[in-house]
Amino acid sequence: MSVIIHQNLSTSISSSTSTFLGHNNLKSIKCSNVSIPGRISGVIKCVATPSAEKTAYKTKVSRNENMGKLQAGYLFPEIARRRAAHMLKYPDAQVISLGIGDTTEPIPEVITSAMAKRSYALSTVEGYTGYGAEQGEKQLRAAIAKTYYENLGIEEDDIFVSDGAKSDISRLQVLFGSKVTMAVQDPSYPAYVDSSVILGQTGQFQKDVEKYGNIEYMKCTPENGFFPDLSAIRRTDIIFFCSPNNPTGYAASREQLTRLVEFAKENGSIIVFDSAYALYISDDNPRSIFEIPGAKEVSMEVSSFSKYAGFTGVRLGWTAIPKELLYSDGFPVAKDFNRIVCTCFNGASNIAQAGGLACVSPEGIKSRHSIRLVLRYTEEKNAPYVWIYFPGQSSWDVFSEILEKTHVVTTPGSGFGPGGEGFIRVSAFGHRENVLEACRRFKQLYK
Amino acid sequence: MSVIIHQNLSTSISSSTSTFLGHNNLKSIKCSNVSIPGRISGVIKCVATPSAEKTAYKTKVSRNENMGKLQAGYLFPEIARRRAAHMLKYPDAQVISLGIGDTTEPIPEVITSAMAKRSYALSTVEGYTGYGAEQGEKQLRAAIAKTYYENLGIEEDDIFVSDGAKSDISRLQVLFGSKVTMAVQDPSYPAYVDSSVILGQTGQFQKDVEKYGNIEYMKCTPENGFFPDLSAIRRTDIIFFCSPNNPTGYAASREQLTRLVEFAKENGSIIVFDSAYALYISDDNPRSIFEIPGAKEVSMEVSSFSKYAGFTGVRLGWTAIPKELLYSDGFPVAKDFNRIVCTCFNGASNIAQAGGLACVSPEGIKSRHSIRLVLRYTEEKNAPYVWIYFPGQSSWDVFSEILEKTHVVTTPGSGFGPGGEGFIRVSAFGHRENVLEACRRFKQLYK
Repeated sequence: MSVIIHQNLSTSISSSTSTFLGHNNLKSIKCSNVSIPGRISGVIKCVATPSAEKTAYKTKVSRNENMGKLQAGYLFPEIARRRAAHMLKYPDAQVISLGIGDTTEPIPEVITSAMAKRSYALSTVEGYTGYGAEQGEKQLRAAIAKTYYENLGIEEDDIFVSDGAKSDISRLQVLFGSKVTMAVQDPSYPAYVDSSVILGQTGQFQKDVEKYGNIEYMKCTPENGFFPDLSAIRRTDIIFFCSPNNPTGYAASREQLTRLVEFAKENGSIIVFDSAYALYISDDNPRSIFEIPGAKEVSMEVSSFSKYAGFTGVRLGWTAIPKELLYSDGFPVAKDFNRIVCTCFNGASNIAQAGGLACVSPEGIKSRHSIRLVLRYTEEKNAPYVWIYFPGQSSWDVFSEILEKTHVVTTPGSGFGPGGEGFIRVSAFGHRENVLEACRRFKQLYK
Repeated sequence: MSVIIHQNLSTSISSSTSTFLGHNNLKSIKCSNVSIPGRISGVIKCVATPSAEKTAYKTKVSRNENMGKLQAGYLFPEIARRRAAHMLKYPDAQVISLGIGDTTEPIPEVITSAMAKRSYALSTVEGYTGYGAEQGEKQLRAAIAKTYYENLGIEEDDIFVSDGAKSDISRLQVLFGSKVTMAVQDPSYPAYVDSSVILGQTGQFQKDVEKYGNIEYMKCTPENGFFPDLSAIRRTDIIFFCSPNNPTGYAASREQLTRLVEFAKENGSIIVFDSAYALYISDDNPRSIFEIPGAKEVSMEVSSFSKYAGFTGVRLGWTAIPKELLYSDGFPVAKDFNRIVCTCFNGASNIAQAGGLACVSPEGIKSRHSIRLVLRYTEEKNAPYVWIYFPGQSSWDVFSEILEKTHVVTTPGSGFGPGGEGFIRVSAFGHRENVLEACRRFKQLYK
């Protein structure tokens, strides 16, 4: 984990920059300009208001009150909106985004050729396949179980292949329903909280504390080493826990995760463990919650090929739910999720699944190892993000000042929860030359 | 629409067979053996119960009560389970499935090569793209609007590209929330009702009438020409309406859809129009609800490339929501759905979207026209299904007797709602030789 504490913006930028680069490893930089043209248009839609005249016909259908609870736009669309507005204001500026954690490095050909081959096969009588299993192709489920969970007691039929972790997080919320209580790391990936609000698990947003009612925010700060003080946490049904965490980049230790599992077991809670960034762990911290003894009785795990293999646009992930995970009445959680998957989903694209199979093949793993290495470049040894602290300052103010003065897009920490206020997240994904250019601008501005 | 009324199974099979083939158009037959190996394994999972000992640790999390309301397995998994059991009982039998409406014909190469090209591009610096717009790629949204809604007032930004209609139906239920009331055609595609139950919109299942409480079942029978008597329908917030209907194959006329839109407007209801089978319409019945004047104020439309282009496994569809569609408070429905898509979904696979773009290109449309034609083969002129009536008999009994005696898998009509009891749906998709073989068996058995 890398945390840099600064007293004011000007010094912070320069030192964060040097930290961001790592003083003596410029040569190893391969990080990112997340230019996301596709997303921009989409994102602008996220905040666009379809025109509707006052006199227009209105149905008698009431708006879902939970949708009305949601605050502002989803974080990344909002950033993209401000980015687009900035580009309109400075049409000639070369904007560099170190904001959203998007992948930019090409996918190894061993993987793309497998997808191309599957595509071509679909135009042959022998190679054509229609509906696949909603849970994913047998071969891929088996390969995921073997590659990521060997000797952890997770089997082929515990794996549910998805079109990505974000989609599965919402399907899990549909599974749990509106009556559960939930806890999240603060700060954390916004989709946990927003999907909880949409499903009606929360109260209204409380502006004074910047929190939704009925959600337990587990504060993760430099003071507690970015691991929550469990003795201060109220019991909830569900605990979303991401390690390495997005945005802090902090990877929980084996001892900490053991305490988390004990905490869940004492409370009879279910941990939804998000291991989307586990590949970036370079020390011996657990890459899966199932490495912790007894975790299978209180945990499920959501993961993704997005950051593993640059599949952010290809869309492929999975959720692992052990047979040992039971509701209070003894009913297996996996059996209900299976019904959700069969009723609300029709399986991931067969072409993406062919790519996933190539990802976990010996050649695929070898090729992805090289991708992974180029992303490991800061003092942050377990995550592709740097989390920078600006005490007493507003994240959005810092975001705006950096954007205005350097045309560099970052991510305001407050977008990840009240605990992120005063922080800025700098993404690690992307092209070396863009980051070097960003640093030149920082240094010139704050020299 | 083709409806055959029979007095008993033996005569019904032979005559349904002849009807099924169309007396004088054997040469034009191109229908289906839906061999769905991928689905089989998955489907078996759908009903598999993870083993859990009585003494096992249980969490204190209560099972979502709505999940407990769901009856039996989802229809097609249940059929696949019975199909698999039959194959175990008769290991040497050549089982032919005319059950689930899966596609079997290869995808035109103009489309698969576009997907292969996009796959290969992802391994290049120039061609790589990460996260796309959650709503779909701008170019594809524009092409769908132009191809299917030109002059109907549906624009690019009204189109939300999805991973298929089934996924979007559930996302729409999440959008509407648990407090809306809904109506469905009876019989209809099971996903409408099941997703409604899961979201908590319904009461318990009432065994005596085979219906869930609080859902309005709009009976569609041979007596009313498979179009509901709207004067007998209770007002609901949402009306799911599929035309051509699955399973009856009946396509509503312009006059009938005009009455449906008027009915919705009088009640202030929202019509969710499912046009997944619209491509099979061969007469001048509307292919989109938006062909009806005023429909945009009370309707949205869900559609899919699955049956259009054999994309059942590739996964690509869309939902069109007009800006004119407003909640009772005047808030645009599309704006909330956009938030759902941004929070609960991350866009369809970029490779599948490249295929979709090829589908709606002039070459793609031409190539798919040839696919469509081979599927048009029975007296049913607007749908790929034949709906056969066995008065006084149980659909599952007829299903079982046909399977036992001919090793042919059909679909029991009761799986589509109480209004389907006594009917059998025979799918039209697939290979000519398998259907000919199925017919030989029918004729031999019932000669």
